[in-house]
Amino acid sequence: MVATTLPPPAPRTVPAQIRDTIRAGEYAGVTAGLANGYVQANLAVLPRALAFDFLLFCQRNPRPCPLLEVVEAGSVEPALTAPGADIRTDIPAYRIYENGAMVGEFTSVADHWRDDLVSFLLGCSFSFEAALSDAGIPLRHQEAGSNVPMYITNIATNPAGVFSGPMVVSMRPIPQAQVVRAVQVTSRFPDTHGAPIHIGDPAAIGIRDIHAPEFGDAVEIRPGETPVFWACGVTPQAVALNCKPPLMITHAPGKMFITDRRDADYAVL
Amino acid sequence: MVATTLPPPAPRTVPAQIRDTIRAGEYAGVTAGLANGYVQANLAVLPRALAFDFLLFCQRNPRPCPLLEVVEAGSVEPALTAPGADIRTDIPAYRIYENGAMVGEFTSVADHWRDDLVSFLLGCSFSFEAALSDAGIPLRHQEAGSNVPMYITNIATNPAGVFSGPMVVSMRPIPQAQVVRAVQVTSRFPDTHGAPIHIGDPAAIGIRDIHAPEFGDAVEIRPGETPVFWACGVTPQAVALNCKPPLMITHAPGKMFITDRRDADYAVL
Repeated sequence: MVATTLPPPAPRTVPAQIRDTIRAGEYAGVTAGLANGYVQANLAVLPRALAFDFLLFCQRNPRPCPLLEVVEAGSVEPALTAPGADIRTDIPAYRIYENGAMVGEFTSVADHWRDDLVSFLLGCSFSFEAALSDAGIPLRHQEAGSNVPMYITNIATNPAGVFSGPMVVSMRPIPQAQVVRAVQVTSRFPDTHGAPIHIGDPAAIGIRDIHAPEFGDAVEIRPGETPVFWACGVTPQAVALNCKPPLMITHAPGKMFITDRRDADYAVL
Repeated sequence: MVATTLPPPAPRTVPAQIRDTIRAGEYAGVTAGLANGYVQANLAVLPRALAFDFLLFCQRNPRPCPLLEVVEAGSVEPALTAPGADIRTDIPAYRIYENGAMVGEFTSVADHWRDDLVSFLLGCSFSFEAALSDAGIPLRHQEAGSNVPMYITNIATNPAGVFSGPMVVSMRPIPQAQVVRAVQVTSRFPDTHGAPIHIGDPAAIGIRDIHAPEFGDAVEIRPGETPVFWACGVTPQAVALNCKPPLMITHAPGKMFITDRRDADYAVL
């Protein structure tokens, strides 16, 4: 070691390193399993003219729309949850919708950006799934290597301005002896969907066929297991696309924004 | 009983009955102790031009600004927390501010209402104080029949648009053996300020003289007690008035809006 050696630069957080890799175009895959312990977020980007109504929709429906951060028009940096990040480039893949129809999937939306776009980062299920796993509760869709099954329910969201529509839920089959524990451990994370919306009979929330989810993949429900339903982050996307906004940008399914915040930062107790 | 007797009308909720009394001009006092078990709310009313920024300020500062409901421009009914109520008449007393200066206190603001006003109802400390009392933790300011002491701190809120400023906190002296329990029981209520912001040394959060609160009344801190600080709902009012909005309406201190929601509805676990 020589006298002129400078101290090493402060190590970047694991999420920042991964975002750098994604920004450089070196990773475009799914983000599940990356940066364990850090909160990942769904993205919804809308023009400013729709931003108040969408913000209010999220405030009125915190279970399906747990808002982690809003990046105002004119900024592209989620300064509270991921300082230094660029919302236009740091997600592996984006989808662009015009008037409600998808026009393409892109690894960067920098070329499509406009100064009037407001970005909404919403909590996702990865945080509470980690809590379930830590509590020894099995996650069937992970064991099967498939997507979690998601269903459109008959539960109406609280409308706000132009936004309204049914709640979408995800379902995990839980062994009956662990259902109470599943409620307890997910209740600690109200900012990432929190406690279940419903336990048991799918018909009670308007699900006609548990084996035919509207999104994701069907999973086996074994004897002695109860289907447990959580509010799903697909809800705000579905509701927003419902009103056919002139422009909307989202993350591509399974390819989330990785924040610098830890799951534990959002635990209430 | 005769055959033509109609069934009695469905009993109105206790909060609805009290709101009726207030609306009729028959009660203009403080609301502490009324409708125990029901959530009371702070009110902040602003013109629509400031509403997105204020909503975003609340989203970014949930501890001092726990938003219970937003009533959009053109409506005066908090349909989610108090269906049938009228935000212009159902609070015992209001304050009206123009360009940041109070112009008067009124028992109704119906004559001052405008179609572009957006109403924000924010959680207050009554809910978590009930939880503290139920846990056997003494509340000095209640014993003394005074207001809780409140202090301007050096903790910056997260700014949003035109809104920024320091966090205001309330302080309760807690016997040392009960400090942990105080954290636990208030953590269950993140929508009504939740867990403490700070425990112990007032100077650590920029409070120079614990005996000289900026708002409310000083209280005695006895040997063996620790000052415990919670984010306070005065914060959003102070921050909003800071930018001298052309019009702002609030509740008068201690005279809150009584909702139909129970404290328990907001407990996370």
